[in-house]
Amino acid sequence: MENKKEIPYKIYLEESEMPKAWYNLRADMANKPAPLLNPGTGQPMTAEELSGVFCEELVKQELDNDTKFYPIPQEILDFYKMYRPSPLVRAYCLEEKLKTPAKIYYKFEGNNTSGSHKLNSAIAQAYYAKKQGLTGVTTETGAGQWGTALSMACAYLGLDLKVFMVKVSYEQKPFRREVMRTYGADVTPSPSDKTDIGRKILAEFPGTTGSLGCAISEAVEVAVKNPGYRYVLGSVLNQVLLHQSIIGLETKAALDKYGIKPDMIIGCAGGGSNLGGLIAPFMGEKLRGEADYRIIAVEPASCPSFTRGTFAYDFADTGMICPLAKMYTLGSSFIPSANHAGGLRFHGMSTILSQLYHDGYMEARSVEQTSVFEAAEYFARTEGILPAPESSHAIRAAIDEAIKCRETGEEKTIVFGLTGTGYFDLKAYESFNDGTMTDYIPTDEEIAASVAKLPKV
Amino acid sequence: MENKKEIPYKIYLEESEMPKAWYNLRADMANKPAPLLNPGTGQPMTAEELSGVFCEELVKQELDNDTKFYPIPQEILDFYKMYRPSPLVRAYCLEEKLKTPAKIYYKFEGNNTSGSHKLNSAIAQAYYAKKQGLTGVTTETGAGQWGTALSMACAYLGLDLKVFMVKVSYEQKPFRREVMRTYGADVTPSPSDKTDIGRKILAEFPGTTGSLGCAISEAVEVAVKNPGYRYVLGSVLNQVLLHQSIIGLETKAALDKYGIKPDMIIGCAGGGSNLGGLIAPFMGEKLRGEADYRIIAVEPASCPSFTRGTFAYDFADTGMICPLAKMYTLGSSFIPSANHAGGLRFHGMSTILSQLYHDGYMEARSVEQTSVFEAAEYFARTEGILPAPESSHAIRAAIDEAIKCRETGEEKTIVFGLTGTGYFDLKAYESFNDGTMTDYIPTDEEIAASVAKLPKV
Repeated sequence: MENKKEIPYKIYLEESEMPKAWYNLRADMANKPAPLLNPGTGQPMTAEELSGVFCEELVKQELDNDTKFYPIPQEILDFYKMYRPSPLVRAYCLEEKLKTPAKIYYKFEGNNTSGSHKLNSAIAQAYYAKKQGLTGVTTETGAGQWGTALSMACAYLGLDLKVFMVKVSYEQKPFRREVMRTYGADVTPSPSDKTDIGRKILAEFPGTTGSLGCAISEAVEVAVKNPGYRYVLGSVLNQVLLHQSIIGLETKAALDKYGIKPDMIIGCAGGGSNLGGLIAPFMGEKLRGEADYRIIAVEPASCPSFTRGTFAYDFADTGMICPLAKMYTLGSSFIPSANHAGGLRFHGMSTILSQLYHDGYMEARSVEQTSVFEAAEYFARTEGILPAPESSHAIRAAIDEAIKCRETGEEKTIVFGLTGTGYFDLKAYESFNDGTMTDYIPTDEEIAASVAKLPKV
Repeated sequence: MENKKEIPYKIYLEESEMPKAWYNLRADMANKPAPLLNPGTGQPMTAEELSGVFCEELVKQELDNDTKFYPIPQEILDFYKMYRPSPLVRAYCLEEKLKTPAKIYYKFEGNNTSGSHKLNSAIAQAYYAKKQGLTGVTTETGAGQWGTALSMACAYLGLDLKVFMVKVSYEQKPFRREVMRTYGADVTPSPSDKTDIGRKILAEFPGTTGSLGCAISEAVEVAVKNPGYRYVLGSVLNQVLLHQSIIGLETKAALDKYGIKPDMIIGCAGGGSNLGGLIAPFMGEKLRGEADYRIIAVEPASCPSFTRGTFAYDFADTGMICPLAKMYTLGSSFIPSANHAGGLRFHGMSTILSQLYHDGYMEARSVEQTSVFEAAEYFARTEGILPAPESSHAIRAAIDEAIKCRETGEEKTIVFGLTGTGYFDLKAYESFNDGTMTDYIPTDEEIAASVAKLPKV
């Protein structure tokens, strides 16, 4: 390894260099993302309809396709300073081990107790709820990253939080549950007897271990029935991508500071919160014709919404109670295999990213689970950080691209998003270490069957 | 909260400002720490005797009371740059919530996958083993922080690692075990049938769940019997405090950069690796008469070696195979209660820190477990970071001192060491959240009984 590096291992912006506004990518899109539809009427959801479920300011952000920048409130900036700016890391060790001429950078979002980028939107959503004078918020969580992030934000602001956690996760992932409880959240295994829908499901399926769709339904019911509460969600929504633009803005500021121009930007894609945030300012330049980048979404082969899904209106939730969104989808009845990257097990995709992919502004590829964990292990041993399974999809693609550079001799600059750490995913690593991990790729027939059930709009 | 802060939330040194040499506190001590003794002869251990167990360079560092600075090899500096410099955080939110005029800073060592400061010495010890041409190293681990750190260092350098993990931890803490395996370590539950001592113990006590003393014995046996191996240890030793001085040196450089002079420095104390590292340059100034600081060691009331122990020669291990060290000790036969701060459950203390405490250069206090977890929860909800139970002992004392400042109106500057994160300690948090956590304080009779068994020197 060289002894002197012009570019440090970790680029930390000064606090004074942190972005002061979120960037709304929709403002630069010629083809705006399709509006959410009311599943009953087939008409676009109005602000009034949405405000029974979401905070007013967040409804505004959700529907606003035009305002380019949203100033970040000072209180949120102060919270961000507790764990941001996050480092942009030059992967010197990885480059050397791969013997690649490529220059690899990753934006690391895992250096906070929630362990992922989810905190960026959690604090924003909690802040607007608090500002509206609400008592609290409700949400669902599966693996628990979003619930953990939200519990931290609510504890900081003194906001009540009710989390419905899929029962099987509640029992099998007690660590995440305890982090949320330590932050004062009220965590209920779902289905529960606290809601009508929960009691109904328990009566019908007494032994059920729950599902994300059911947990969403319970969280929404509690929010709608309790005047001082609203429901919040950690991905997919336009507002979430807006808040997550902080990732890309910081990344771009750090690159600009050292005069680095990336050739490609790689991110894992589940509902799109990380990917949409990471690429936002780069995609903006591309949309405005100011620069060109390859932008690559990486998804699991077991849940390939971009690469094998259909661009159509669909329910965002398996319970079919949410508005319809136009997106790349495998169908809301599609049940992905028990892939260990829980954050990427979503049948659909952000409407913003779906439109951009449809319009040819980005690429997508799918990767298999064991190959993802091979990359994760390689990365951990080389760069020190134990990555989340979700993030490791991006690592896989970045390594593949770096190997191509080794073969062609091209000195490309690769930037990828390392969304989080794998400290709560050791069961997955255990199955990889034991050699018992498997891959699963859905058949064309499976996908066709769930796509056939798409709602007619 | 004020909107403009002169001092940032997190002070990150530039990579160019990182310390280039470790500081050997012993060089400034008028009363040197007492030498290790051979338990057979009662004579000081020679370099030759020690080099069968430890690497040559590390033996030199262990015995060297005079060399003031050890240049950090470039390879170790490069590794440090993957996770250092660590931030010195201004606890603005904690100050505000406590309504204290005190200024509180903490040096956060948990932002790496091992989750603690242990990595600082792990990479150094692994490096010297590699440089000596060894095949690998052996060690023991209880809760697993040290084993995790060492596995990361060995993976980076391509060094073989055999970890003997106390069987009960191996079974009950599978997450730590899997992190080590992901980094390529060979992890064996102890006692095992791989060693003479292990087989002997298994024959005598077939159902035993192991102990740290037994794991040490197995690790040392494997190191001594295999020519290409040496044994390494994560705390207590002088060499470990030398490497850990990076914590204090960075802390002091960050404070100096902003012209901040602390009034007191607080650290948790188990074997002394964190405390000794954190205070090193400050204690140096104090020893040289250049400055004065209150230096406070915080230990668990369940294992109070400083506050209720005896300053005498004792075995460092419960198995009584290690050299004798002069230290504050509760007796090597003292069995601390199952306190959740596993890293602080050691009957003795670093000989360096013991001498300094004996000579009146530092204070010590003990705190009870539930009060430590109250402080941990308060800190987590306020500053965002979920702290390790060990680190939370220092948090408890820092909060107590900040409350005193509120009462007296004094604007003291408090610096404490936040050694790590509590992501792998959620069982402990669960018992706190459930209200089932208990406190245990040993009786005078218990301590007297184990102290009565101290070896005669």
